[in-house]
Amino acid sequence: MGTAAAILGASGYAGGELVRLLDAHPAFDVDFLGAHSSAGNPLRDVHPHLTGGDRILEPMAAVGEPDVAFLALPHGASWEVGEALAGRGVKVVDLGSDYRMDTGDRYEAAYGTPHPLPHRLGDWHYGLPELSGIDLRGADLVASPGCYPTSALLGLAPLVAAGAVEPNAIVIDSMSGVTGAGRSLQENLLFGSVDESVGAYAVGTHRHRPEIEMGIQIASGVETAVQFTPHLVPMQRGILSTCSAPAIADPLPVLTEAYVASPFVEVIDQPPQTRWVVGSNRAFIHASVDVHANRTMVLVAIDNLMKGAAGQAVQAANLMFGLPETAGLPMTGWLP
Amino acid sequence: MGTAAAILGASGYAGGELVRLLDAHPAFDVDFLGAHSSAGNPLRDVHPHLTGGDRILEPMAAVGEPDVAFLALPHGASWEVGEALAGRGVKVVDLGSDYRMDTGDRYEAAYGTPHPLPHRLGDWHYGLPELSGIDLRGADLVASPGCYPTSALLGLAPLVAAGAVEPNAIVIDSMSGVTGAGRSLQENLLFGSVDESVGAYAVGTHRHRPEIEMGIQIASGVETAVQFTPHLVPMQRGILSTCSAPAIADPLPVLTEAYVASPFVEVIDQPPQTRWVVGSNRAFIHASVDVHANRTMVLVAIDNLMKGAAGQAVQAANLMFGLPETAGLPMTGWLP
Amino acid sequence: MGTAAAILGASGYAGGELVRLLDAHPAFDVDFLGAHSSAGNPLRDVHPHLTGGDRILEPMAAVGEPDVAFLALPHGASWEVGEALAGRGVKVVDLGSDYRMDTGDRYEAAYGTPHPLPHRLGDWHYGLPELSGIDLRGADLVASPGCYPTSALLGLAPLVAAGAVEPNAIVIDSMSGVTGAGRSLQENLLFGSVDESVGAYAVGTHRHRPEIEMGIQIASGVETAVQFTPHLVPMQRGILSTCSAPAIADPLPVLTEAYVASPFVEVIDQPPQTRWVVGSNRAFIHASVDVHANRTMVLVAIDNLMKGAAGQAVQAANLMFGLPETAGLPMTGWLP
Amino acid sequence: MGTAAAILGASGYAGGELVRLLDAHPAFDVDFLGAHSSAGNPLRDVHPHLTGGDRILEPMAAVGEPDVAFLALPHGASWEVGEALAGRGVKVVDLGSDYRMDTGDRYEAAYGTPHPLPHRLGDWHYGLPELSGIDLRGADLVASPGCYPTSALLGLAPLVAAGAVEPNAIVIDSMSGVTGAGRSLQENLLFGSVDESVGAYAVGTHRHRPEIEMGIQIASGVETAVQFTPHLVPMQRGILSTCSAPAIADPLPVLTEAYVASPFVEVIDQPPQTRWVVGSNRAFIHASVDVHANRTMVLVAIDNLMKGAAGQAVQAANLMFGLPETAGLPMTGWLP
Repeated sequence: MGTAAAILGASGYAGGELVRLLDAHPAFDVDFLGAHSSAGNPLRDVHPHLTGGDRILEPMAAVGEPDVAFLALPHGASWEVGEALAGRGVKVVDLGSDYRMDTGDRYEAAYGTPHPLPHRLGDWHYGLPELSGIDLRGADLVASPGCYPTSALLGLAPLVAAGAVEPNAIVIDSMSGVTGAGRSLQENLLFGSVDESVGAYAVGTHRHRPEIEMGIQIASGVETAVQFTPHLVPMQRGILSTCSAPAIADPLPVLTEAYVASPFVEVIDQPPQTRWVVGSNRAFIHASVDVHANRTMVLVAIDNLMKGAAGQAVQAANLMFGLPETAGLPMTGWLP
Repeated sequence: MGTAAAILGASGYAGGELVRLLDAHPAFDVDFLGAHSSAGNPLRDVHPHLTGGDRILEPMAAVGEPDVAFLALPHGASWEVGEALAGRGVKVVDLGSDYRMDTGDRYEAAYGTPHPLPHRLGDWHYGLPELSGIDLRGADLVASPGCYPTSALLGLAPLVAAGAVEPNAIVIDSMSGVTGAGRSLQENLLFGSVDESVGAYAVGTHRHRPEIEMGIQIASGVETAVQFTPHLVPMQRGILSTCSAPAIADPLPVLTEAYVASPFVEVIDQPPQTRWVVGSNRAFIHASVDVHANRTMVLVAIDNLMKGAAGQAVQAANLMFGLPETAGLPMTGWLP
Repeated sequence: MGTAAAILGASGYAGGELVRLLDAHPAFDVDFLGAHSSAGNPLRDVHPHLTGGDRILEPMAAVGEPDVAFLALPHGASWEVGEALAGRGVKVVDLGSDYRMDTGDRYEAAYGTPHPLPHRLGDWHYGLPELSGIDLRGADLVASPGCYPTSALLGLAPLVAAGAVEPNAIVIDSMSGVTGAGRSLQENLLFGSVDESVGAYAVGTHRHRPEIEMGIQIASGVETAVQFTPHLVPMQRGILSTCSAPAIADPLPVLTEAYVASPFVEVIDQPPQTRWVVGSNRAFIHASVDVHANRTMVLVAIDNLMKGAAGQAVQAANLMFGLPETAGLPMTGWLP
Repeated sequence: MGTAAAILGASGYAGGELVRLLDAHPAFDVDFLGAHSSAGNPLRDVHPHLTGGDRILEPMAAVGEPDVAFLALPHGASWEVGEALAGRGVKVVDLGSDYRMDTGDRYEAAYGTPHPLPHRLGDWHYGLPELSGIDLRGADLVASPGCYPTSALLGLAPLVAAGAVEPNAIVIDSMSGVTGAGRSLQENLLFGSVDESVGAYAVGTHRHRPEIEMGIQIASGVETAVQFTPHLVPMQRGILSTCSAPAIADPLPVLTEAYVASPFVEVIDQPPQTRWVVGSNRAFIHASVDVHANRTMVLVAIDNLMKGAAGQAVQAANLMFGLPETAGLPMTGWLP
């Protein structure tokens, strides 16, 4: 009856969130759960917190022709299946990074290898609804943004677009919960390695940087280089992006105006805690001019698995199918 | 026999660390534990993890004339007792902020009120041994640096001094464990408020900023404004300072040279985790030029209660009394 | 249009959960948020994660005559307002302990003071729907169980009722997240006191013990004494109750049968993690006979704020108003 | 000059603690660090928090003939190398479980397979100094106890020995920090699996149970069966054992008397927090009779990597070499 939805990569953290959200969604019906190494096992083996644990994870290749497919796959694993699904007329939301760049040149500059299907990049819409505007309504193919770019661009894009900050000498320090690093068995993801510690990683090399720079260029019309440093923080979920840029004008009216009609973005009058948004699809933004240093500080908090991944993908799918933008998406956090 | 040491403010987190370090110190003998509201109670009531729990906390006024006094008191509570002790010939290490500024003008600019004893500021030495050099050997009065300035200046001061980074447009984002915020009963320090969340606080207004700026000015000879944003992270101890400045030259040889003789500072070849230094008096520093953004990134990890407070105070006291700089100070962390 | 619901004690953790659940409930409309010290302030000041933050917290006395009132008040603060509301024909769900005991004698034995209205105790129904059965359908006054008794009785009551374990020599060790201890400013609730530590509290004296014993007596027909020891664990939410009793018969068929029609209780084939139920109103139960020690081990995991407080209260209210038992209650957890 | 000490299994958590303790020890000199998969790499790769990070991990077989060898190896990996070292006249402290049982029959009953060298079991001393008494002074071969048995037996052994509790119907629920589960790459040790959750594991099957039962039998003279359930708690270090047994007499005088001369065990007048002992080699014990349930509750807190592993091994080695029992062992915890 409902719109048939397939989830490819259901065994990861983002995939599990997609299952949780779509199971409760008024319009979509999950009818396919695809996985690699977990294929053949019941859902409860990988996500004991979900209902319908008897559902069996299937091999990816068995996806068939759903109305919409959500791809929650590792970097580089989306482009082929995404292209195949598109060829069969399936609407696709790719949570990976394969179709996020606007041109093959930018992709190659960012990732160091040519894009396998550069002529197709123009057919995928960048799925940040608050900034992509009406593009997503009725779109067939959406590349859902990365978690860090979502947080950084929600704060910075309206400001560079309005000329309220300079689009250069931007410094972004982001702090993420550990689910943002995925579920693979790595020494640096052990509790013993993460708990009671904080550290930066991928300093100067994280592949979300070119994605952030693309967004700032689109908003400002100016090519720019940002300094982006991600940090891992001992918590399950949440991202705080602390963004600094040379000040030009008061950021608050610009942000307030930019998000006046956005159901998920709230401009608040104090620095946000990630705890206030974790569990919801909301973004909390605070901005102020540091007159002493003559720089603007923008602080953005999101849940990396919701507005930074599964929630935002569902938000895009709502628009693709002409549904209310908020359908099936939680507005409240889980605090405490 | 040993050097008689008094601890004023023994009931707080930094005070407890002082007790722990000095109890195990080869030269100092703790003979006075002063407290305000806990006076009259045994030490075990406030620090059940320490030995000698039967020792009674005494009223501050009973301090008498020890050889050295360590002041671990709130902002504004040190200057009077510090002056009184100095007048009696007691050597003093003040872990508070009352005597950290070099001039009354800077104090007033920073804190908004005149310093009560501006003519005395010149008599107190800023107690960051790695940067203050031989000043501390034999000094009588030492103002021990704040935890954030310690981390930021260990990374930035040698670089601005050597002209390896520009001393302006500096952006410092620091992440601290919760003990850095003290032990008072506040809603924002409850486990329910802190756990599983990260947030910035005191944005643009933290009083460690002028202290950082003073250090950078002294090192570079140039007056400057930095943007400093502290964050609270759900962990007990540790500070990571992520410092960004416009690049001029390779920072690594400068830092390596600067700390070649420093027993506590290690320049490492990867981003440090706070976990690697927690429990020790060490600082781990990593620096690299982000050629894409043309900015230098310096990452510094310390334990806020050790190198950022009690450990550094003991290090200064070692120098004041002509002892080996490392006497009684742990070099290994507690990982895991 | 909907059923008007008042929440008294909206500023606490359980109160906040009631707001979150009832705001999303298909039948209830929250039209009163009562608080003590926070009265006059907007909801966002105490619960920034909720929507509708502009709603003003009102003084308790202004509650008026809603269709139903939820009392999330401290021990001893419910009986008077509960009686007053009952007198005005308001249906009441009391999340406190004032009306949980079946007789005045038991209340006095448990709490050491006479119950102020012992003749009214019989008018309040103990609100553990899985065990209280049809009693709650159409009930006017419900005393919602404590979080620990909920977890312990869900595991033990069917077993003692069926004679599958002996109702004596029962040992219950429960481990709770910190929100179970409330939101007050206490030294032992600071992050610095809780993080990276576990400890027992209220050993032999916790007032949930007599409530557990009442439940076991009702189920078994035998008066009994249990040993109950609560522990605080460094996490926000969740309770695990590890219950041991002398074995008589295989517990699994008894429990499976007992909960075959219960939407919220699942008997699983491995020890439950609290993470699997946190965020949902579910209880996960595992039981096995330890043949070596000849004792049965029952492990029960719930979310202390959901099935242990707000969720269970809404579940009871659903029954009181003839609604589906699951209306407005989440079935999935939040992992990860 | 000092006593040459080898550490086999230096790359694990317990091995790292041994390095940390022995590097600071007044009598032992670490001259060999053995590892399996990490052999050939510098120590800093596996333990960046330690000093002397340049030291190279060597293959186990290169151990040679130190004065003493500490074996921190997985279950089943100690017996062969332990026997070989013993044959060369090397004193050995085995932190593993291969030589802990007193007889081959008990070993086989516990582990399901025959012991490879049952005739040698009598030559190894069980290394719980507080209970093993003078046996360890001058001993050549010591099997250091498991972390859970250490905590449980410190609380229960003196009580069953004195007849203060019955040696049957004993129920032990232990809660451990995650380092107790080791450092291997397992899904259940990921931060995402552990953080914000508590759960029991190895219910009824943990191999520390027979070790606990052996200790109780030796103390009481009675063969017994205990119910032992370990739990994993979201923290790095620490074990709390909550032990319940039928009451006979007041436990406090018995425990106080038992440990009057023990430098590491303190009987305290309130339930211990693990935080109070983490980082030290101490055990904090509290005991009380629950007159209502007629059972005695004994609560024991230790650091699983110190008194539960590396600290206790060094304590035994101190006795083996006629050193002061406390040499090189910290007495204070790390709180906060």
